[in-house]
Amino acid sequence: MGPNELTLAAAADAVRTRALSPVELVDSVLACVEEVEPRLNAYVAVTAERAREAARQAEREITGGEYRGPLHGIPVGLKDLIDVAGLPTTGSSRVRAGHRAEADSVVAACLADAGAVLIGKTHTHEFAYGLITPQTANARDPGRIAGGSSGGSAVAVAAGMATFALGTDTGGSIRVPAALNGVVGLKPTYDLVPRDGVVSLSWSLDHVGPITRTVEDAALVLPVLTGGRPATVDGGLAGLRVGVPRNYYFEHVDPEVEAAVRQAIERMESLGAVLVEVEVPMTRYVQAIQWGLMVPEATAYHERTLRTVPELYAADVRVLLEAGVLLPAGDYLRAQRARALLRREWLRMLEPVDVLAAPAVPLTAVPSGQDSVTWPDGTVESVSDAYVRLSAPANITGLPSLTVPVGADSAGLPIGLQLLGWPLAEPLLFRVGRAWELTLERGIFALS
Amino acid sequence: MGPNELTLAAAADAVRTRALSPVELVDSVLACVEEVEPRLNAYVAVTAERAREAARQAEREITGGEYRGPLHGIPVGLKDLIDVAGLPTTGSSRVRAGHRAEADSVVAACLADAGAVLIGKTHTHEFAYGLITPQTANARDPGRIAGGSSGGSAVAVAAGMATFALGTDTGGSIRVPAALNGVVGLKPTYDLVPRDGVVSLSWSLDHVGPITRTVEDAALVLPVLTGGRPATVDGGLAGLRVGVPRNYYFEHVDPEVEAAVRQAIERMESLGAVLVEVEVPMTRYVQAIQWGLMVPEATAYHERTLRTVPELYAADVRVLLEAGVLLPAGDYLRAQRARALLRREWLRMLEPVDVLAAPAVPLTAVPSGQDSVTWPDGTVESVSDAYVRLSAPANITGLPSLTVPVGADSAGLPIGLQLLGWPLAEPLLFRVGRAWELTLERGIFALS
Repeated sequence: MGPNELTLAAAADAVRTRALSPVELVDSVLACVEEVEPRLNAYVAVTAERAREAARQAEREITGGEYRGPLHGIPVGLKDLIDVAGLPTTGSSRVRAGHRAEADSVVAACLADAGAVLIGKTHTHEFAYGLITPQTANARDPGRIAGGSSGGSAVAVAAGMATFALGTDTGGSIRVPAALNGVVGLKPTYDLVPRDGVVSLSWSLDHVGPITRTVEDAALVLPVLTGGRPATVDGGLAGLRVGVPRNYYFEHVDPEVEAAVRQAIERMESLGAVLVEVEVPMTRYVQAIQWGLMVPEATAYHERTLRTVPELYAADVRVLLEAGVLLPAGDYLRAQRARALLRREWLRMLEPVDVLAAPAVPLTAVPSGQDSVTWPDGTVESVSDAYVRLSAPANITGLPSLTVPVGADSAGLPIGLQLLGWPLAEPLLFRVGRAWELTLERGIFALS
Repeated sequence: MGPNELTLAAAADAVRTRALSPVELVDSVLACVEEVEPRLNAYVAVTAERAREAARQAEREITGGEYRGPLHGIPVGLKDLIDVAGLPTTGSSRVRAGHRAEADSVVAACLADAGAVLIGKTHTHEFAYGLITPQTANARDPGRIAGGSSGGSAVAVAAGMATFALGTDTGGSIRVPAALNGVVGLKPTYDLVPRDGVVSLSWSLDHVGPITRTVEDAALVLPVLTGGRPATVDGGLAGLRVGVPRNYYFEHVDPEVEAAVRQAIERMESLGAVLVEVEVPMTRYVQAIQWGLMVPEATAYHERTLRTVPELYAADVRVLLEAGVLLPAGDYLRAQRARALLRREWLRMLEPVDVLAAPAVPLTAVPSGQDSVTWPDGTVESVSDAYVRLSAPANITGLPSLTVPVGADSAGLPIGLQLLGWPLAEPLLFRVGRAWELTLERGIFALS
């Protein structure tokens, strides 16, 4: 195992104790990029020279006694919606040709201050408006989708091309690709992580968050993005109330996904968690609210370019943006009102529990080009709808949601557990996810 | 002068010192109603028996030593959008036939707790969606419009049919009829006065506030509605910075209105105020923002009845509601975004001043049936647009705005000064308005 495959926690320990030089770490990541990137295409742009220079600087600082903390010298990939001064922010779109960010986004500045080393900008489904990331291949099976929209970030982390990455999540765009590639993804509480300098898809649903190899790693990244304190993640499960949905989250879910998630939940119970069955409210409004908010907000953001250069958008994104032009204000207002009700009801649902445990996505990564899923009862669902379905409630409500790998299906494709909590309950999500993670022999790598 | 014509402050003093019985006061108001209501039609319903009983109770409490404060035993009219338990809230609409409020609105409950005596529910332009209040006649000239939408409340106060009243204001609906009938109207800071139990026109623009005979009276009512402390209103003008708009507020304004307002501003300067010229920003967006927010929000509120009983709406209101069905979500979103910018720019404009002084409306009350105004430069403007124009910025920004009578035109029709301030700067508006008011010999009655 090369240093590029270390968890962030392990790499940080090695860097801090000078057992590993940031230069060596970054070189091993760049070597991996050279090897696997032609097959996976996770990056829009790799900033190798800049990365090597930053690694050398980190090395000088650390050997000079100026250790900045656990991200110092650690290689990171940033979804190409996140501004880095002097680089283009393309959103993986031809619309952004010739773009150049004038200043760092807040999160890029936070990472730079913490000493993280930028490896490059990762691919997104164009402007984050999709669940596939068609440019990028799944890290476990290149014939399958990466998931999206933060597909490049998830694949980079899963394949050893970055120790961690940032993504954005408007309807599941961090958690879906994380689950499909067997890594950890956190969509934080709404507005906890600043979005300044990050291209918007739908401002009332957008979130920025980390993609990492372990829950422990995610807990190291989040405080850097928020300016908050590191959370203790090792409290164990004893006495924690884990909500298990009676409805919705196990409907139209692949049996292998359901089995793996239920097994993880049982394991939590055996570790002292108290399982509490909960009824998920207002589920039949989730899809209408998600689309009723996202479609007009996305169109409003793209209004000018949609008028001037519509031909530069990919067909799937363009049709969604053009649909938004026709949406009546009443539909948007109804979605806003329904969201307020849904959020209230979900907070009520969470009252008797500490976290909710459920599948992250209803099925593992589908082959590239597959458009729809047929469920055993004959229901046909588009692949995008299926991947959004279990993720969107956390976007609508603003509640934090963490996805953690919990095994693989018979084809070896990763399965994700979703942990959802109260506003600002990220420390609790980390604690529960970490307790599960510790049951695995060597963290995430035991799963493959 | 009968007790029904006293200011609230004078009536409250007389009631507190037992020089005046609430029963005598309410009887004089009801006698006035009997006399002038057939001509003015300010009330949807007069609750005479209930009022007499409440007056007797107030009298018993006060003679028993249980004086509740300045509204105790004082006659009040409530715009018929404001729920009073057991009474219909008709919104002056046939759509609400058979309605009966189950509980008091928060403001009605506050007034009841303070011992105010409800005289009746006052007419509104149907569901507050208009600037005329066609059912009601102007208190000074029955051939002219009352203004709206809180026309009934303003006329009741101006004509002696209530000592004070409450109205609602979404684009000027408290301040326009107050100005046109020569009384004081306050649109408080957004969300300062609770709207629970008040029929909504456009929730992001709606405000509830008092209509009174003097500024001093308004300062007695506001704290009862907010649970706040009474403000000191007698600080005078020395050293206060009064902003005078260089643009917008004196454009397309009747010369007699302009002269009266400028004279009042000069008078303030002679009393020690420092005049500061200000440039009003983003004025060309005011109308688009106001309508872009109001039209879809109003339609969303009326969605069901617009579909089931469209024929019960008045033609002018129905056409506005039906237009809202067709408005694209993008227009609403643009209005929301422009509002955020406009609010920021307006707060910047206010930085060098304590209050802004301007006309409340560009022209006095037009004859009933007049649809449009032709300005000297040939511009034709609808009457509604003209009355909304100078009021709407305070709704869009949420800033508090007070209108105070400052004289009459050559036809004897009242002219209103508008004072606009920082969020929660109502005490300062009262202080400035009161200083002006004290320059008049006997308050408002010197004007007629």
